Amino acid sequence: MMTQKPLDGIKVLDFTNVLAGPYCTMMLANMGAEIYKFERPGCGDDSRAYGPHINGESVYFLSVNRGKKSIVCNTKTEEGRAAFLKMAEKVDVLVENIKPGAMKRMGLDYETLKQLNPRLVYVSLSGFGQSGPYSQRPAYDMIVQALGGIISITGEPGGNPVRVGMSIGDIIPGMFAAFGTVNALFARERTGFGQKVDIAMLDCQVAILENAVAKYSATGVVAGPLGSRHPLITPFQAFKTSDSHVIIACGNNNLFNRLCNIIGLEQLIDDPRFTTNALRTENVGQLAELIQTKTLEKTTSEWLEILLKADLPSAPINTIDKLFLDPQLAARNMLVEVEQAGIGKVKVAGNPIKLSSVPPEDELPDLPAPQIGEHTKEILMEMLGYSEADAERYFEENHLH
Amino acid sequence: MMTQKPLDGIKVLDFTNVLAGPYCTMMLANMGAEIYKFERPGCGDDSRAYGPHINGESVYFLSVNRGKKSIVCNTKTEEGRAAFLKMAEKVDVLVENIKPGAMKRMGLDYETLKQLNPRLVYVSLSGFGQSGPYSQRPAYDMIVQALGGIISITGEPGGNPVRVGMSIGDIIPGMFAAFGTVNALFARERTGFGQKVDIAMLDCQVAILENAVAKYSATGVVAGPLGSRHPLITPFQAFKTSDSHVIIACGNNNLFNRLCNIIGLEQLIDDPRFTTNALRTENVGQLAELIQTKTLEKTTSEWLEILLKADLPSAPINTIDKLFLDPQLAARNMLVEVEQAGIGKVKVAGNPIKLSSVPPEDELPDLPAPQIGEHTKEILMEMLGYSEADAERYFEENHLH
Repeated sequence: MMTQKPLDGIKVLDFTNVLAGPYCTMMLANMGAEIYKFERPGCGDDSRAYGPHINGESVYFLSVNRGKKSIVCNTKTEEGRAAFLKMAEKVDVLVENIKPGAMKRMGLDYETLKQLNPRLVYVSLSGFGQSGPYSQRPAYDMIVQALGGIISITGEPGGNPVRVGMSIGDIIPGMFAAFGTVNALFARERTGFGQKVDIAMLDCQVAILENAVAKYSATGVVAGPLGSRHPLITPFQAFKTSDSHVIIACGNNNLFNRLCNIIGLEQLIDDPRFTTNALRTENVGQLAELIQTKTLEKTTSEWLEILLKADLPSAPINTIDKLFLDPQLAARNMLVEVEQAGIGKVKVAGNPIKLSSVPPEDELPDLPAPQIGEHTKEILMEMLGYSEADAERYFEENHLH
Repeated sequence: MMTQKPLDGIKVLDFTNVLAGPYCTMMLANMGAEIYKFERPGCGDDSRAYGPHINGESVYFLSVNRGKKSIVCNTKTEEGRAAFLKMAEKVDVLVENIKPGAMKRMGLDYETLKQLNPRLVYVSLSGFGQSGPYSQRPAYDMIVQALGGIISITGEPGGNPVRVGMSIGDIIPGMFAAFGTVNALFARERTGFGQKVDIAMLDCQVAILENAVAKYSATGVVAGPLGSRHPLITPFQAFKTSDSHVIIACGNNNLFNRLCNIIGLEQLIDDPRFTTNALRTENVGQLAELIQTKTLEKTTSEWLEILLKADLPSAPINTIDKLFLDPQLAARNMLVEVEQAGIGKVKVAGNPIKLSSVPPEDELPDLPAPQIGEHTKEILMEMLGYSEADAERYFEENHLH
């Protein structure tokens, strides 16, 4: 039996594609919402075509669409548009991430839908937002990573541009959209009315830059890339060992002094170049070199044993395979097995929001990722009042393209 | 007059420090919640010591603490603990990010507080969570960036380890915590009860890795760093120009063919090495070299004019100063001026959640970042029933350390 989750009973019409939108609705699904993913006939979500594939099933697709139901719908046909409108009357939330203006051209914009359903929360995700001079420009993750400044502060000083290795340009707006959605649902409890939520990928990149923005504004200093090190705290970076690297992060004098004692650099504790965090940051080049002469003497795992025993913040640089062996991630239920048709058992990232009301086994919805249109007939009959024969006809007309 | 915001009337006891916790409560403040930041006597939040400083005021601190009120409180004194408990009775949400177990040792854990206030939503943020073998280990942003795998997929192939340039290890858990908080508030509307929300920085890193996790699980392929390029889509990376770089992102054949025509590489459209996205990704080295021979012929701004006119997804790599000149960010109200005591006018990142019920001028709370204990007396008198004389005495005892 499933425990009650915060969004139990909340229905979401999911008219999104690829990543930012699907990540948003996955977060809502993890909190208990029922997600109806509308996919176009034929290929469905673009990411079904992204590799790797196993028996024709996209692993990429399943990783952000588990826990959802799929209905095939061509909103450009009369019947498809009617089905969409009828569904919009019945749901609590609609999430879309098509080009600004396109929903309006189809007569599916917020102003139209709120007439049918004044309680609807209508969430629009786009590259640049529903307003402003770039609104009609095409965007991808990489475009907003570049425009939003994050690429300019990631990488080696003087080195080539480096992309943040996961799609931060999509995931962050997906997260802000999910947060905005639940806020709008909470507001609806008081006002009785839904509203429109407008999220731009570019805005979201700026929102996570934290001090870099205010720092430039207040001082004129433009942040740049610093390799593995932190701009303000020292030592706080990767050091080479005899076999790979170890991360050491010392946020205060106490930790720094303990580090010096443990790695055999006691003489640095009173060295006037390194007595405060500010001085250590100023002289980071010299300090890092001294520390590295020591870290090179042992392997990463030897160092970790020594450093962690001394309660010094330290870590290896885990590759993805190492996550599957990590006892903490196992204890936290952060790699969850899903049984996926065509693929079999596959592990996906778990839900990082641990609620006292939800036991670990209920943290993810009890559904794998849907086959395209897997729930078309069920949704037509149960929610839209189709007869079985009509649902059958719809299915044949829309699934055989 | 302020418009109604989703979290208007929601009171938050903010017992957090530095970044993940303060970012969470800033997101709640942006949605209308009233934040009471509890700071220890003397130095207050650690980040008040982080540079740059202007007239003794930390720009870092202000960038994540605008819109909050500050009360000085030493929870290790009898009076301080009593004030904390009384406040916990009156608020809707408590957010803390101290080491797991420490709240319990002070008698301020969820089990104690829910007796006083069963409606309380109690949010704990920590490096590794309240459970599991690493629970007592110290953590910083860099530690979880490394342990969570993101450093292993960021940077140049074979290059040095590279940190994501903003504190993704802190910001992401701050965002998940804010999302969890509002979900728990929404659940409370139905159940009448609060609950405990447990967020681990490490869990959150794994939750944003998207396809890398499922890909390894399903295929055994370990993702690695790829410089500026995307693992699955090609061309989708930075190319050198005659003066810097340009990002070009072509997610399908249509865009690729248009790109070839526009930059003078028509012969590649039918080149068997490049006819599909899968082939382009397989032969990305050869393709990137061919494209770069062309991009090197003009400056970045010349290319942007050409590419954007052809509706091709493209961008410069903006440094932080360029954000302040961007017309889209200006149109979206994403750089907002705050008047900060001691510093004067300074711009901070705006609120990326654009709600139709909230006009742009109300998107951020109407308060700058607080001076330490700026609201101590006000809170003691208005919320905790202190007389003016008692508040004065408390102030003198706690502020003059």
